[in-house]
Amino acid sequence: MSNQELVLTAIGGGMTPERAGSWAPALKALGDPVRLRLLGEVAASPGGEACVCDISGPFDLSQPTISHHLKVLREAGLVTSERRATWVYYRVNSDALAQLAAVLSDLAAVVGEPTSCEVAE
Amino acid sequence: MSNQELVLTAIGGGMTPERAGSWAPALKALGDPVRLRLLGEVAASPGGEACVCDISGPFDLSQPTISHHLKVLREAGLVTSERRATWVYYRVNSDALAQLAAVLSDLAAVVGEPTSCEVAE
Repeated sequence: MSNQELVLTAIGGGMTPERAGSWAPALKALGDPVRLRLLGEVAASPGGEACVCDISGPFDLSQPTISHHLKVLREAGLVTSERRATWVYYRVNSDALAQLAAVLSDLAAVVGEPTSCEVAE
Repeated sequence: MSNQELVLTAIGGGMTPERAGSWAPALKALGDPVRLRLLGEVAASPGGEACVCDISGPFDLSQPTISHHLKVLREAGLVTSERRATWVYYRVNSDALAQLAAVLSDLAAVVGEPTSCEVAE
């Protein structure tokens, strides 16, 4: 049950205001089709990293616009970046994505579970 | 490897524009701390369902504001609703959450995987 363990690690104890506040910005950053596609492009790039020059091809967007979306992803902790010579290279933060996946899995799993404070009527 | 199968079902073939466009609205709806907490409250309610009257307690928000957030979640397919007498009862759509979790897991898992079209230099 390693998946369940991951789930419990993620939000065992419920969706507290603090947890909701820490996860919402990353989910908000993911809530844009261009950014989801960019994550997919970066994740699938050789070696798991890419610069704007590598990934702008499939997008009908300017490089500054793509750079802006990558910056939003970086500020949300979903990608990391490293400057090398002229270009900034981006890498998907797979740990952050896995944690968000666990949060959503846990919400799905908890639906209708009996609670310890439930009283039979 | 049932988890991996779920992942492959979710986005095997990559993050296409169509898939990104279909998943982004739900992730955007999740990108709000109040809505995440509401999902947690509804999911953990006895029987997995709740009306505004049940869940407004922990929130420092009016019932109309909470109803608005629940409507956003419903329009994004993350909860379903059913009117019974005076109240609308909400239930978390655990399938939708599980699918989004699989999408994010897949993105995390694909990072740096060798691609079939990669050519050794």
